[in-house]
Amino acid sequence: MATSNGVAASAVRAAGDVTHWDLEADVVVVGFGCAGACAAIEATEAGADVLVLERASGGGGTSAMSGGLIYMGGGTPVQQACGYEDSPEDMFNFLMAACGPQADEAKVQLLCAESVAHFHWLVVHGVPFKHSFYPEPFMEPPTDDCLVYSGGEDAYPFDRIAKPVPRAHKPQHPGAAGGFLMQKLVAATERSGARIMGDACCETLVVDRQRAVVGVIVRHAGQEHRLRARRGVVLAAGGFIQNREMVARYSPLLAKCSFKLGQDGDDGRAIRMAMGAGADIIRMDAGEVAIPLTPPRRLMRGILVNRAGQRFINEDTYYGRVGQECLFRQDGRMYLILDNAIYERNLAGMRASHVEASVGDLERSLGLPNGALVTTVEFYNRAAAREEDPLFHKNPAMLQPLVNPPYAAIDCSTDQTLWATFTLGGLHTRPTGAVLDPDGAVIPGLYAAGRTTSGIAAYGYVSGISLADGTFFGRQAGRKAASTAR
Amino acid sequence: MATSNGVAASAVRAAGDVTHWDLEADVVVVGFGCAGACAAIEATEAGADVLVLERASGGGGTSAMSGGLIYMGGGTPVQQACGYEDSPEDMFNFLMAACGPQADEAKVQLLCAESVAHFHWLVVHGVPFKHSFYPEPFMEPPTDDCLVYSGGEDAYPFDRIAKPVPRAHKPQHPGAAGGFLMQKLVAATERSGARIMGDACCETLVVDRQRAVVGVIVRHAGQEHRLRARRGVVLAAGGFIQNREMVARYSPLLAKCSFKLGQDGDDGRAIRMAMGAGADIIRMDAGEVAIPLTPPRRLMRGILVNRAGQRFINEDTYYGRVGQECLFRQDGRMYLILDNAIYERNLAGMRASHVEASVGDLERSLGLPNGALVTTVEFYNRAAAREEDPLFHKNPAMLQPLVNPPYAAIDCSTDQTLWATFTLGGLHTRPTGAVLDPDGAVIPGLYAAGRTTSGIAAYGYVSGISLADGTFFGRQAGRKAASTAR
Repeated sequence: MATSNGVAASAVRAAGDVTHWDLEADVVVVGFGCAGACAAIEATEAGADVLVLERASGGGGTSAMSGGLIYMGGGTPVQQACGYEDSPEDMFNFLMAACGPQADEAKVQLLCAESVAHFHWLVVHGVPFKHSFYPEPFMEPPTDDCLVYSGGEDAYPFDRIAKPVPRAHKPQHPGAAGGFLMQKLVAATERSGARIMGDACCETLVVDRQRAVVGVIVRHAGQEHRLRARRGVVLAAGGFIQNREMVARYSPLLAKCSFKLGQDGDDGRAIRMAMGAGADIIRMDAGEVAIPLTPPRRLMRGILVNRAGQRFINEDTYYGRVGQECLFRQDGRMYLILDNAIYERNLAGMRASHVEASVGDLERSLGLPNGALVTTVEFYNRAAAREEDPLFHKNPAMLQPLVNPPYAAIDCSTDQTLWATFTLGGLHTRPTGAVLDPDGAVIPGLYAAGRTTSGIAAYGYVSGISLADGTFFGRQAGRKAASTAR
Repeated sequence: MATSNGVAASAVRAAGDVTHWDLEADVVVVGFGCAGACAAIEATEAGADVLVLERASGGGGTSAMSGGLIYMGGGTPVQQACGYEDSPEDMFNFLMAACGPQADEAKVQLLCAESVAHFHWLVVHGVPFKHSFYPEPFMEPPTDDCLVYSGGEDAYPFDRIAKPVPRAHKPQHPGAAGGFLMQKLVAATERSGARIMGDACCETLVVDRQRAVVGVIVRHAGQEHRLRARRGVVLAAGGFIQNREMVARYSPLLAKCSFKLGQDGDDGRAIRMAMGAGADIIRMDAGEVAIPLTPPRRLMRGILVNRAGQRFINEDTYYGRVGQECLFRQDGRMYLILDNAIYERNLAGMRASHVEASVGDLERSLGLPNGALVTTVEFYNRAAAREEDPLFHKNPAMLQPLVNPPYAAIDCSTDQTLWATFTLGGLHTRPTGAVLDPDGAVIPGLYAAGRTTSGIAAYGYVSGISLADGTFFGRQAGRKAASTAR
């Protein structure tokens, strides 16, 4: 990966100090993951001369590491073919609840209103989707099937907020499809006529006396290149999960998660570059937190308890919601409690850290407070026998009293299992991609999309959101940058 | 209060555009609360020509609204006179635990090492302290007494982390002493020879081509004034709790608290000015959250439950810790459950929202999950009868089974009672007060202290911390700015 040669990202270059430009384009796109690709395609199609810069040798970015789920709804052809009736309103209501508090209403509104059109745009640009539903939720299907429930739409509390329908769409490719998706988007970018420069590390921005961004400084093959952006620069270079110091400063709890989900390039450089040009950063504490209960459906009949031996969530909700709840509110400590009936049938690959003949023994073995787990299990069992979960409203189909010894616990705490995380905070942007300063003013010439920004997922998360807002708002940013005369 | 006439704070002025200076000083201090006063005194005593700017007509700021507690320890004369043996190490260990996660170790270390000296500095500058202890914790004494436990030092979990001693010192004045403290510090500032300009709104910073801060633009009596700062600018202008949009962007949960604790000037303007000059902002989600259980000691024999009817904290901890726990982890909802024995004796002024003959009736009346409160109270009572609290380790002296009907609940949720909050996030500074950019580099000529910065309290809080780090780090910033030749 191309590096910056020690140049500070936020030390922007004054345009007056740039005596000549080595290269020019209408729109310079920084980063070639899904947001950068879609920005480049839109900008090129809008008539702009586009140059894409990527630190790695080729396109893909962290998007290519993903499972490939793209959150789309409101009545896509796949939803219709599979018999699910959806509306932009239901999608909006779900996302505002799942991605809050204070999800960006204007962005969510636009995404939902144009989601079906976005599906067609992806298809037109070479991304195929099979018209099929896969019943196991949350993860990308291991087959080439498409549609899954990815955010707990059919579980409490969201089943009471919006009509539950599946909205995560996986491109037609067996198993994880992030790499496949990026192959298609990279190919579409190449076809569009955008110029692509690999092994190119964008070091900092060039800013004129009116505080407008007019170019970038790039290091490529050991040389500094000054690139003029006649209309605008689009930052689409990922988040900051691979920058240990930024994580410690902005979201220290994320540091507890052992697996930092992102390419090396997710070092927040683009965010710091923009800050040097006066950009605001928001929701920097937010993060997606995925716990390793996968496939989770199998184990949801057990109960999750915190270190006080109390339940704290309905176990059948989206595993990312469990992860956020546990990391941010339960100090990253939790145990999955199972009995022999659940353990025997379902525990493929998961290792119990503790197995005991009684719940009381398990409680002592786990070092939980005296009587706490016994009380929790008794309370849970009594209600489960009535097919009720008065505390957290787990689906009755998942309620099964824990009464068959031996009893087992899986220690799912941050320091015991693989927790995967990436950052959700970043630049404050308008739905157009225009980057804002702390006083709410647009920084001329500067646009951003994807995990470089705070997007649809203000705090909460749903699988498929990153590729959805990366591709969708990447397109908005590319189009807006291309249309900006100056 | 002087206002900005619509000038954007972050739109810094280029030094090249300032054709003349209306006024000059070595050090310009923005804000005249406790941090600004102490910065001005130190800078003046270090030989600098100092100008203090304040938007209100006179000094005081939000410091003057406070109770006046100042967190000091390590063996102050008051601690010694009252028979408490303290050390910088115990103070350090306590603060790192109480103010984390990821409290700024270098700042905490310096504050603890020099805390006794800081006490003497305050005395020398006219702030008197009575050598007396007041036994009711958390709040400022209603008398002129000095020393109180203000952070739950003697309760779980801190009693196991550092030897419990009281460290909050109130100046010798009956009742709330923030105004009295500021009278003394304003007088000391005047005596020092610093110039003071009231009704002066600092609009933005002046930055030269090397990105150094060389002055400020001020609006005073309807006129714009260009003030040159020969050595540096110290920003000590409070936090951003009165800026609704900033709270929504950076810490949306704080918006739920009905009482925003701060003067109108706590609108984050100084933070935005610094961002315009390239400053980083950290821990912007953090906030102090004070709940209205005061005086709290009386009601700690009851139990606090969340909306699942579960306890979630030891009720005898610092009320600000209860507030943070409830707002950030329990959705801002909680009930204090009492029986007739506790209610009768102690409930001065607090109104029960629900009173019922049995715990089961109270549970139904509150709309808590079926069986949840009954189970919680039974579990609590069984252990309390043994003088144990296995879940949260409340002090045995506070454990009293709830067995005397009728039973009462006080709804302490954010929407039912007065929650007071202010922001803890802000500029990233070195212990010297030097303001850092997102790449960790110092911005020449720019210093900050107090709630304009992220200080001792990274996330957690203890009463007395704001005045402690405002006064102490205000001094550091003033001294450093004064010593900077350029």
